[in-house]
Amino acid sequence: MQEINIAMIGGGFMGKAHSLAYAAMPMFFWPSPARPIKKIIVDVTDDLARTAAERYSWDGYSSSWRDVVNDPGIDVIDIATPNNLHAEIAIAAAEAGKHIICEKPLAPTAGEARRMYEAAQKAGVVTAVAFNYRRTPAVALAKKYIDEGAIGTILNFRGTYLQDWSADPNSPLSWRFQKDIAGSGAVGDIGSHVVDLARYLVGEISEVTSLVSNFIPDRPLQSGGFDALGGSSTSDGPRGAVDVDDEAMSLIKFRNGAVGSLEATRNAWGRNNYITFEIHGTEGSIFFNYENRDELQVAFKNDRADRRGFRTVYTGPNTPYGESLWPIPALGIGYSETKIIEAHDFLKAVAEGGTVEPNFADGYQAALVDDAILESGRTGEWVRVPDVTDPNATDV
Amino acid sequence: MQEINIAMIGGGFMGKAHSLAYAAMPMFFWPSPARPIKKIIVDVTDDLARTAAERYSWDGYSSSWRDVVNDPGIDVIDIATPNNLHAEIAIAAAEAGKHIICEKPLAPTAGEARRMYEAAQKAGVVTAVAFNYRRTPAVALAKKYIDEGAIGTILNFRGTYLQDWSADPNSPLSWRFQKDIAGSGAVGDIGSHVVDLARYLVGEISEVTSLVSNFIPDRPLQSGGFDALGGSSTSDGPRGAVDVDDEAMSLIKFRNGAVGSLEATRNAWGRNNYITFEIHGTEGSIFFNYENRDELQVAFKNDRADRRGFRTVYTGPNTPYGESLWPIPALGIGYSETKIIEAHDFLKAVAEGGTVEPNFADGYQAALVDDAILESGRTGEWVRVPDVTDPNATDV
Amino acid sequence: MQEINIAMIGGGFMGKAHSLAYAAMPMFFWPSPARPIKKIIVDVTDDLARTAAERYSWDGYSSSWRDVVNDPGIDVIDIATPNNLHAEIAIAAAEAGKHIICEKPLAPTAGEARRMYEAAQKAGVVTAVAFNYRRTPAVALAKKYIDEGAIGTILNFRGTYLQDWSADPNSPLSWRFQKDIAGSGAVGDIGSHVVDLARYLVGEISEVTSLVSNFIPDRPLQSGGFDALGGSSTSDGPRGAVDVDDEAMSLIKFRNGAVGSLEATRNAWGRNNYITFEIHGTEGSIFFNYENRDELQVAFKNDRADRRGFRTVYTGPNTPYGESLWPIPALGIGYSETKIIEAHDFLKAVAEGGTVEPNFADGYQAALVDDAILESGRTGEWVRVPDVTDPNATDV
Amino acid sequence: MQEINIAMIGGGFMGKAHSLAYAAMPMFFWPSPARPIKKIIVDVTDDLARTAAERYSWDGYSSSWRDVVNDPGIDVIDIATPNNLHAEIAIAAAEAGKHIICEKPLAPTAGEARRMYEAAQKAGVVTAVAFNYRRTPAVALAKKYIDEGAIGTILNFRGTYLQDWSADPNSPLSWRFQKDIAGSGAVGDIGSHVVDLARYLVGEISEVTSLVSNFIPDRPLQSGGFDALGGSSTSDGPRGAVDVDDEAMSLIKFRNGAVGSLEATRNAWGRNNYITFEIHGTEGSIFFNYENRDELQVAFKNDRADRRGFRTVYTGPNTPYGESLWPIPALGIGYSETKIIEAHDFLKAVAEGGTVEPNFADGYQAALVDDAILESGRTGEWVRVPDVTDPNATDV
Repeated sequence: MQEINIAMIGGGFMGKAHSLAYAAMPMFFWPSPARPIKKIIVDVTDDLARTAAERYSWDGYSSSWRDVVNDPGIDVIDIATPNNLHAEIAIAAAEAGKHIICEKPLAPTAGEARRMYEAAQKAGVVTAVAFNYRRTPAVALAKKYIDEGAIGTILNFRGTYLQDWSADPNSPLSWRFQKDIAGSGAVGDIGSHVVDLARYLVGEISEVTSLVSNFIPDRPLQSGGFDALGGSSTSDGPRGAVDVDDEAMSLIKFRNGAVGSLEATRNAWGRNNYITFEIHGTEGSIFFNYENRDELQVAFKNDRADRRGFRTVYTGPNTPYGESLWPIPALGIGYSETKIIEAHDFLKAVAEGGTVEPNFADGYQAALVDDAILESGRTGEWVRVPDVTDPNATDV
Repeated sequence: MQEINIAMIGGGFMGKAHSLAYAAMPMFFWPSPARPIKKIIVDVTDDLARTAAERYSWDGYSSSWRDVVNDPGIDVIDIATPNNLHAEIAIAAAEAGKHIICEKPLAPTAGEARRMYEAAQKAGVVTAVAFNYRRTPAVALAKKYIDEGAIGTILNFRGTYLQDWSADPNSPLSWRFQKDIAGSGAVGDIGSHVVDLARYLVGEISEVTSLVSNFIPDRPLQSGGFDALGGSSTSDGPRGAVDVDDEAMSLIKFRNGAVGSLEATRNAWGRNNYITFEIHGTEGSIFFNYENRDELQVAFKNDRADRRGFRTVYTGPNTPYGESLWPIPALGIGYSETKIIEAHDFLKAVAEGGTVEPNFADGYQAALVDDAILESGRTGEWVRVPDVTDPNATDV
Repeated sequence: MQEINIAMIGGGFMGKAHSLAYAAMPMFFWPSPARPIKKIIVDVTDDLARTAAERYSWDGYSSSWRDVVNDPGIDVIDIATPNNLHAEIAIAAAEAGKHIICEKPLAPTAGEARRMYEAAQKAGVVTAVAFNYRRTPAVALAKKYIDEGAIGTILNFRGTYLQDWSADPNSPLSWRFQKDIAGSGAVGDIGSHVVDLARYLVGEISEVTSLVSNFIPDRPLQSGGFDALGGSSTSDGPRGAVDVDDEAMSLIKFRNGAVGSLEATRNAWGRNNYITFEIHGTEGSIFFNYENRDELQVAFKNDRADRRGFRTVYTGPNTPYGESLWPIPALGIGYSETKIIEAHDFLKAVAEGGTVEPNFADGYQAALVDDAILESGRTGEWVRVPDVTDPNATDV
Repeated sequence: MQEINIAMIGGGFMGKAHSLAYAAMPMFFWPSPARPIKKIIVDVTDDLARTAAERYSWDGYSSSWRDVVNDPGIDVIDIATPNNLHAEIAIAAAEAGKHIICEKPLAPTAGEARRMYEAAQKAGVVTAVAFNYRRTPAVALAKKYIDEGAIGTILNFRGTYLQDWSADPNSPLSWRFQKDIAGSGAVGDIGSHVVDLARYLVGEISEVTSLVSNFIPDRPLQSGGFDALGGSSTSDGPRGAVDVDDEAMSLIKFRNGAVGSLEATRNAWGRNNYITFEIHGTEGSIFFNYENRDELQVAFKNDRADRRGFRTVYTGPNTPYGESLWPIPALGIGYSETKIIEAHDFLKAVAEGGTVEPNFADGYQAALVDDAILESGRTGEWVRVPDVTDPNATDV
């Protein structure tokens, strides 16, 4: 079996998730398209990197992503750093001929995303962007229903991503609240997942109008951990300004004529990882809520009138990816499984010399949507979303 | 006990609901503020009216609403006709000094609503508009939480009203799909309920931007029954044009700084009477779904971290209106109960010479929001919602 | 239209519910099988009865049920007193040739129930026992599915009725906790409803084994109100002994070979009126929860493997009783509607000289099951349930 | 970090799950109590074992479990074979001084379980039995609530495990339907999990009475795969007799005075891995459904009357095991995580020379309950459950 040598840039939460995915991928997908070799992991200091290598079972470690990117023994660069480093690393990796998987959002701005996309295009490497939620089996099942025409022509898509881990004004000012690192707030961090789901399930978004809000103008300065989600609150220390959005709500038009809405907020007490979509078609409807991710709800117009209503379908061996996962439905899909599937689909493309979606074109297109959402939030106007192929789509 | 003599204009579905409400009101609310006397019911023909009187237990019947409105023995006019008759009847009733309860939306256009409002103002009569869903005990409980500050300052309100009874292109072209009778489609018919809930729970809406869609351009011509909801489908008879909207989605701003979204659609397969709202505040969140109307969900920021999450509260004796309804929670709130409470609150105001909400001012204000939604749907711009007190709010 | 003159014995919660039902029945069911005339209502004092008559719109009132039972102007006796009075009133009514509807359980013991049943048999009057929950449209839909064979041969039935209104040891010692009045505790009060649902949906129960528990041995003595459900707690006044069960759990066998379980408890914090059943058949399953009573869940074996799962069907015009109720699904079924349907089905039988189920035979059979549950709780043995036709079923 | 050398006996579904757990354990739990080394995996043929080693990343493979059990380089034997091999392997492993983790149920009969328990006792090795569902974070949270007294004294526990993967009479006759291999049907396979949850959360079970049923008397003979769950149906090939139960329902008494019920069935169309429990205490209630395993529902008596109801708590960093798992609630707990936690708790005990629960004593005690359930199913009597320390508990 072909071996693929991987270097992981970033030893935080995502480093953990990706390490698990590489270890588990062939256990789930067998025969496996390739054997991922966890060669080297990079973190900001040697100490952090050494610990990450030990914890996540990587052969080696480094504190220099540049060295690693240029290491001829490496086939794949996996980028899980804060957003502002994505472009520099990815472009260097592309230039070094490495295949690349990058955490989402692809970059803080569409301009940077474009540079990444173009560098990868030029280098001809395989790319992926880690919008893992479309790998949830129930989401893949929704896609299958749509492709089969089971709900007819899509009229409307509503997507939400609601969280509360930072709804407390005393949760710390991590990089996710700083524009120069993150690019945007809820829009890029979680809204981009909803944009990806909309594009995956319905098609390209052509126009948006938005309401973009900041509710918490400052937060306690954070010492230590770089990538903290949530974390302890300190209410009386010094505070720093938040210069990104907490919430964005949009109305959208798709190129194919469907309409819809998107919402992302970090201020929804009681909602944790509430990624939902509801899709209405001429022949039926679909509802999904990631918090109950083993199940997909689907309603069919043509069910007998006294037996019609949303069906709660549990994913399992009979649904997409199911034969590779667990032997019966509802045994339990977790975050791990979404990442294992993602690793499989990417590595399969690398092994076979193909492509995978979502790739850098998708990440760039999603960034164009994000930028349009933010621009509409500023102007109050409907904003057209350009296409990745449009040379005037954005400044590089 | 004071008797209040009522005339009911309209013997359809709403005539039934209101008749039940008058019969049951003192059974629930005791001591009762007044005894409603079901004096006379009006329908378009004598035959229909006679049958309605017999079925709904009215003392008399008539096919002339004008005679009834001018009958000195009548105290209250209850209007449950198609929307295009509301203004004429209500204005005549006001001029005759009758108190008035009118089904929603108050009128097909804000202009007509204004004339009704001004006529009632001038006459000094008690008015009510039948946005009954705010009378659901769970909705009244949400209002109580908000008024108590239980969820803090409101950041965001999202309301939906999704239905599918007319999602089939072969469901008949009733008056609800004809602009000259209904004024608008989903916006006035069901969206107005969501507007009422938003205003009741959060406050006045100041601006909207909207996407307004028609999905089904023509429907089979309907013979017979005036007010059919749903009904049998005929696929090969002659069809007539639908000139109203099937769906409207809006982003909204409230005067108090909160933001939100509204959605109304008749094309949501699997959704029946899916009136929901989710409200995020600085201290908690509320979620309501009318399809499970005995319950309200509420999450509190300050619950202990390992015991925090949406609470499913069933309304009953300890919640608003509860002492008058059923002795234990979840015994069962139906459509009837919302109408019984509505009748009580209106008749209490009549008996005591007070006022009740929502009244014609509210109905007019809701119509101004509806008109703004429709206008934004045409222009793609944010549209300011005037206040009922604004002399330039709308043409009369 | 035929008039049926009714006398109501009991002016409490059930007096209210039945009064509403009689007023509303022809509004819902039209053409109506009869017009119920609310002739006279009886309570324990003239004052209470007079108030009840005024509140619930009865023509007259009385404090003597005996006079009323023998009044030649009365056609129907409606019994809604505490359980220990059912037999005496019903037998007198039967002997006077009156048709009878009686609240559940039919009597405190199977022996008394038998006497009622035999008296009614002898008199040839129409009888009904008010197990109203089988009148919930979603329950009637479950029955329809079963009768159509939609879930195949029934293997298993599990029914529950969980409440918490008296889970607090300081809720008052109403008659429902006194054996000489109520006969039993949770078994008769709420368990009997589950027994009725089991018999209605699956068939006759042949054997039971049970665990019967009392958790709260004494409660505060209650002053005043006779029929309080819940009510205020007083923690330091005098207390009296509870001599009935708080909970009963049973395994059951049906005559047709199906098996099952029944559970009734008043000590389930967080459950209000949690009447549920889940039925597994060879071709599908059904689940119902009264707390969300507009909906029924049904799963079909033969649905395509990747589209199989419980369907959430909302009752409405296309499901049993639906044409008489509200025009679209989920508009709202409440307690009222179950009672209105019950009144209709009973009065139709009276008007047409037919029979209705559940009648006194059913009430007696349910009492035989209840007695078997209690006996098994004492002995720990499986107890055979006799048939109503068995002359040795119980002592009279 | 201490290394622990593991040998895995069995390369099926459980081999996969355990392999993933060993790979991922230190990624989640850090600093890790030990580093598991996946030394050798055993399957019935060399070919199967070689493939398993490659797929699941084991250093070596073998088709002789005896050789492996006696290999001095092995510290831990992990048994994931069909039930009838558990005892022989475990006893040999104990005699060789190996620590042992064994899949559930511990053995086909309590007698065999006793021999395993006694052998391990004698050898003084660390043991564990893989009732992984108590490792679900939400179940651990339920345990925490109970230990804190949050729901008071427990009155009642109801547990269910409902599935439908073999509800089709044409699903194949795998070893799970053969008494000589499996010992029992639903009782041991899935009911034992519910017994484990009952013992974990409430305490020892002292008595049971049961209804045990077989619904499908024969199934198609299966060629090939040993451990198939579900699998393709063949309707016209030769069939073999099923000599185990499809369903068991029990009433139970706990030694501490609580009561309850248990149900396990494989014939519940629409239920997939429906492991639920509902617990009523004097101060509150708990509800759990594994199909929505990220959440636990809890109701508290002492919540304010108008804010009382089941809270839906999502497990995350603030709940048991949460700091080691994912950074926010509802990111996603799957089957993997339950197995990773299980591996951690077992290996920690091995590394530290401690003990872990559930161990062979628990597995034996659960088998005693299972045997009592089966015996009561035969006799119809209440059956006392002996204690593991009782020398007459069962024949060896």
